[in-house]
Amino acid sequence: MKKKFQNPESLVRKQVRSLNEYIPGEQLAVEGLIKLNTNENPYPPAPQVLKAVKDATDARLRLYPNPTAQKLRERLAQFHNCEPDNIIVGNGSDELLALATRAFVEPSAACKEKSKTIVQYFYPSYSLYPVLADIHGASKNPIKLNSDFGIPDINELKKKWIFDAALSYITTPNAPSGHGYSVKELEQFCGLNSGVVILDETYVDFAEENALSLAFKYPNVIVSRTFSKAYSLCFLRVGYFVGNPVIIGAMQKIRDSYNVNGLGQIAATATLDNLDYYRHNFERIKISRSKLTGALKELGFLVFPSQTNFILVEPPIYPAEVWLEKLKRRKILVRWFNQTGIKHYLRITIGAENEIDSLIKAAESILNEK
Amino acid sequence: MKKKFQNPESLVRKQVRSLNEYIPGEQLAVEGLIKLNTNENPYPPAPQVLKAVKDATDARLRLYPNPTAQKLRERLAQFHNCEPDNIIVGNGSDELLALATRAFVEPSAACKEKSKTIVQYFYPSYSLYPVLADIHGASKNPIKLNSDFGIPDINELKKKWIFDAALSYITTPNAPSGHGYSVKELEQFCGLNSGVVILDETYVDFAEENALSLAFKYPNVIVSRTFSKAYSLCFLRVGYFVGNPVIIGAMQKIRDSYNVNGLGQIAATATLDNLDYYRHNFERIKISRSKLTGALKELGFLVFPSQTNFILVEPPIYPAEVWLEKLKRRKILVRWFNQTGIKHYLRITIGAENEIDSLIKAAESILNEK
Repeated sequence: MKKKFQNPESLVRKQVRSLNEYIPGEQLAVEGLIKLNTNENPYPPAPQVLKAVKDATDARLRLYPNPTAQKLRERLAQFHNCEPDNIIVGNGSDELLALATRAFVEPSAACKEKSKTIVQYFYPSYSLYPVLADIHGASKNPIKLNSDFGIPDINELKKKWIFDAALSYITTPNAPSGHGYSVKELEQFCGLNSGVVILDETYVDFAEENALSLAFKYPNVIVSRTFSKAYSLCFLRVGYFVGNPVIIGAMQKIRDSYNVNGLGQIAATATLDNLDYYRHNFERIKISRSKLTGALKELGFLVFPSQTNFILVEPPIYPAEVWLEKLKRRKILVRWFNQTGIKHYLRITIGAENEIDSLIKAAESILNEK
Repeated sequence: MKKKFQNPESLVRKQVRSLNEYIPGEQLAVEGLIKLNTNENPYPPAPQVLKAVKDATDARLRLYPNPTAQKLRERLAQFHNCEPDNIIVGNGSDELLALATRAFVEPSAACKEKSKTIVQYFYPSYSLYPVLADIHGASKNPIKLNSDFGIPDINELKKKWIFDAALSYITTPNAPSGHGYSVKELEQFCGLNSGVVILDETYVDFAEENALSLAFKYPNVIVSRTFSKAYSLCFLRVGYFVGNPVIIGAMQKIRDSYNVNGLGQIAATATLDNLDYYRHNFERIKISRSKLTGALKELGFLVFPSQTNFILVEPPIYPAEVWLEKLKRRKILVRWFNQTGIKHYLRITIGAENEIDSLIKAAESILNEK
């Protein structure tokens, strides 16, 4: 009765077979490494947050966490002046960005109406969007940002942008450039789209403005937020979307029942009780950003203006790839993207004050090698 | 330029619109409640596990967790005598059960080859399987178990079972009955299927046998395990699949990059270093199961034999639904399924010794009311 399998690949969907292998980010196990490559916050969570997590680490770990992150959603609703039904919490915002493709976009093979199958985004921006489209079997429509990373003007957009695409992502402020968009231009842009638009505000706490109001004004606009970067909680995976209750409700239906771990829920809730601590750190990071920008400019770097906790720079003398290696040898890890349009640049996370000083010194010493 | 939306529902995929609202499990906020409704382990995690989680609750929460749960996969590979490539870790096994539909099953609308679109399972069993099929837009083929919850014999199966279905789930031991299947009968059953078969061993630590060997023998067989129930870690969401590296690799490609929170990884790894603690608790639970079975039988309950940490019973005199309410009034919560075939039964989680005593006393007092 037993069947033989020549090739277990035949059990996997064709579409999945054709995807690239997942390659995890660079994790250098180097003693004393200064890690400025993944935009993590250099400062730890507030002491009260750590205490809340420790205090909850007891017999309750045996129990299921709240399935809808109810308390956290209530606190977020208070914070954002909306209802808990406007909010869905995810296992990091990555989970929600993926869920959105499954809630709003038809796989290309299942639908003849082209616009319903389209995931649309600008590039360069968060590299996950095309990956999510491919996983879901959707069509992609990547549109190039202006060379200063601004949104192309309406006449440019009209050439390629699909105004009724099922789902459009925009990283605001942009990564990897740090370019900020005003609420006014985002509102204008959102108004052009009849499909769902996700304003991915991962880095918004370091920016001049946020566009949360648009999530309440337009039923097709979702704002994505995360506790990972600004709130130092990458390890615990908590992100959330804010939007119209019908749109949010559709996503609730298709997520895993217990998608947010209990200690993550507790840590995020405690975070909202200690915002002053984090706001103080945002200011420190912005001061370091300004200091680093000035110092690197003096050393001959081209530095793009940033509204995030990282800067994009074009280094002098050596190609960016060579700088990456030279810095690595000095135990400093930054990010280089081997992609058309940005391969001449390095992305540098704003670390703690001493890390920024080390980076500036390292850059000086590299330039003095000559 | 602004578009008007009469109805935000139109932004949601038809298939998702037609899904039922998600209804979270009953969470009674009652002081002193004895919670025997969701099969959680009555005993806390090992003290060393709690200590490991507390010790890790520091500045590292700001950093991303390992994206592939590398250390945990290495320890699991050691434990199960296989390679890390045989293992994928998920945000609870629920995440992996859902991922499997997306890795192995074509949505019905996208594929004319019927068998490739089928999610198949026995009933009654884990109620998530049909939900996952609906979310993915797959076809469902539910097949009734025998009245004693055994697998139908081959002549019965031949009438309805689809031997080349893309994906088949079997809960072993079965929930909600507690019925155990021998490795021999599972091997015979797996041998009949040319699609992927998931042996969902959520409760296997309370059973007489496990079928892990089949995951290494047959490339189409996956074994699903979880730290939630037997290892008292529901709160932290850690489950895993064991199977052929090609099959497991396909799932790795489509999961979220950082799907398992860092404290969950640490807790699960520490769990594997303290198995004696848990094995001792398994024995306690099995003794309580035997005691409860005997006591309820004496009171006139019909009790199905169980190889899990719960028992399925048919109570005397009152309908199961009435028993549910009467027990609830005595601050004891058990599970009643309003489903054909099992609505005469209650499912009771094996709690701690004192909880089991309270349940027996409550049953006696309900019967004495008459």
